[in-house]
Amino acid sequence: MTRSYTGHVSDHAPRKRPTIEDVARVSGVSRGTVSRVLNGGHWVSPPAREAVEAAIKKTGYRINPHARNLATARANSVAFLLTESHDRLFEDPNFSVLMRSAADALAERDLPLVLLMAGSDDEQRRATDFIMGGHVDGALLVSSHRGREGFLKRLVEAEVPVVSCGVPLGYERRIGFVSADDRDGARDAVSFLRERGRERIATITGPQDTSGGVGRLEGYRAELGDAFEERYVAYGDYSRASGARAMESLLEQAPDLDAVFAANDMMAAGAIDVLQAHGRRVPDDVAVAGFDDAPIATRLTPQLTTMRQPFDRIAHEMVRMLLDVFDGRPAGRMTLPTELVVRESA
Amino acid sequence: MTRSYTGHVSDHAPRKRPTIEDVARVSGVSRGTVSRVLNGGHWVSPPAREAVEAAIKKTGYRINPHARNLATARANSVAFLLTESHDRLFEDPNFSVLMRSAADALAERDLPLVLLMAGSDDEQRRATDFIMGGHVDGALLVSSHRGREGFLKRLVEAEVPVVSCGVPLGYERRIGFVSADDRDGARDAVSFLRERGRERIATITGPQDTSGGVGRLEGYRAELGDAFEERYVAYGDYSRASGARAMESLLEQAPDLDAVFAANDMMAAGAIDVLQAHGRRVPDDVAVAGFDDAPIATRLTPQLTTMRQPFDRIAHEMVRMLLDVFDGRPAGRMTLPTELVVRESA
Repeated sequence: MTRSYTGHVSDHAPRKRPTIEDVARVSGVSRGTVSRVLNGGHWVSPPAREAVEAAIKKTGYRINPHARNLATARANSVAFLLTESHDRLFEDPNFSVLMRSAADALAERDLPLVLLMAGSDDEQRRATDFIMGGHVDGALLVSSHRGREGFLKRLVEAEVPVVSCGVPLGYERRIGFVSADDRDGARDAVSFLRERGRERIATITGPQDTSGGVGRLEGYRAELGDAFEERYVAYGDYSRASGARAMESLLEQAPDLDAVFAANDMMAAGAIDVLQAHGRRVPDDVAVAGFDDAPIATRLTPQLTTMRQPFDRIAHEMVRMLLDVFDGRPAGRMTLPTELVVRESA
Repeated sequence: MTRSYTGHVSDHAPRKRPTIEDVARVSGVSRGTVSRVLNGGHWVSPPAREAVEAAIKKTGYRINPHARNLATARANSVAFLLTESHDRLFEDPNFSVLMRSAADALAERDLPLVLLMAGSDDEQRRATDFIMGGHVDGALLVSSHRGREGFLKRLVEAEVPVVSCGVPLGYERRIGFVSADDRDGARDAVSFLRERGRERIATITGPQDTSGGVGRLEGYRAELGDAFEERYVAYGDYSRASGARAMESLLEQAPDLDAVFAANDMMAAGAIDVLQAHGRRVPDDVAVAGFDDAPIATRLTPQLTTMRQPFDRIAHEMVRMLLDVFDGRPAGRMTLPTELVVRESA
């Protein structure tokens, strides 16, 4: 793996400061070995690394730790940039699954994952400053809500390598992305409910400033075609509470419904809570299908029928694409199919 | 706030590369304004920042993003360094509470929190490389298990500013720390159980390679004094499952117990599960007290009596202490009292 989005400037140390040669001389290893230690220690034996680190300390070379980056202009790290609140990170299991998969994919390249929270405007400014300071080589952008343009604009204009999870609304042509097929996944879910004999299928949408929220509603509409009716639609924000609220609305505005497609599993859980509280049996009276195949899907009673998102593959493809961008190749757009997982709720 | 653990080296740009003066000339602002933009954009108006960023792009100055750090040798960021597995971050609510509090405390100084996972040996090596590469100014170390010496040794020897949450076993004299008073907190919990008339008080310990696990067991022993008996002790690892296993052991080895002090709330939850499964009423037959006041404490039936750890204050004191270390002041050791929260389980 060669990454070369900048040149070498190894003749960069000031006269009066200890040079890489000083460190090499004191540690008794080659200049190349010192350089490798400064670049993360790959292909360096532990004793050699210890000798170099001792020499760095002795010579005072460590006073200028960023010389390492000047030598290569690589940080050897990648940000996991999450445009969500702290609460959402810990409440929505999709983020922890994606973060772990991304960490695994990066570990295969011996790169650390650096989590940066960018939920609020201030967090976004600080995260952007950090990234543009060169402390990471690029970013895996997760959960981009529309209205984040100012934030992404700086990164895109500075040509910071970024790959998005899901379609980066407004930046589809400037940022590479890897996404589950939200539209066709939703179509498949609704199609399955129809095959099971359901005729009045409602939906609880995700937030309409996210590509997943928009795409899954599009798929629902596309599958229903002329049968689509607005009263079968209620809007949620992916939280369980919003799924419950949306289900209450649906029971009022469309009490004849016999199925619900929720745009994620957490909202499906909230919908099942409300259906059961109203004495509607799931799936006998109302079938419920979700989206994600989150851990909660198997903890519900009845267990949830859902569309599985291939998070592990999404994360691995995001990392592969980001490394391509590092190497100067243009970023692509990749859509991965979802998979129907039939359990008990539909 | 002045941080000065390295000097200025602003005459550092190589001859043939665009200089900070080039950027100032092209953007039409002063050299000082360019410098402030390069250092994070504090005290710079948005139009000036945009002009500077445009000029950076135009002149090609951005090719060398680390010049910003050379100018000050500050990364303007702090790592939240978690020596735990990915799973534990999302399972143990203490970590999310601490991380949020630390992010809040850092935000008050306009510093971003950079999460680095350092559970495995490889993760520790990568995190150490990242930190020693100067990409953060220091680290808030969370949950240090004994046996992490190799990992901490490199940071300590390189004089990287580190402050630990909890006593950093083996490094008590080289790393500053902020800790809840585990020993006296445990004493208070056991003392409370005795005041309630309990006479055969068992304990479920935390892991004995952590300061909290050791300290809370010490407090339990100290409070019982001559009444201490080994058969009333079972060992856990802070997980709910380990609390359940330990409770099963206790019911076998000390079936006459009338109270349990668990070293955290998750284990207390597991203990209550097992007690109830065995037909022991809580608190009537067996009183249960926990430690932490985690979110689960109020979700249990009965609600949990526990010792509250002041996580928000711990995080704020850690950040304050770390900034002191940046300024060259020696790190301190701070112990903060816990607070008994009486609910229903004892």
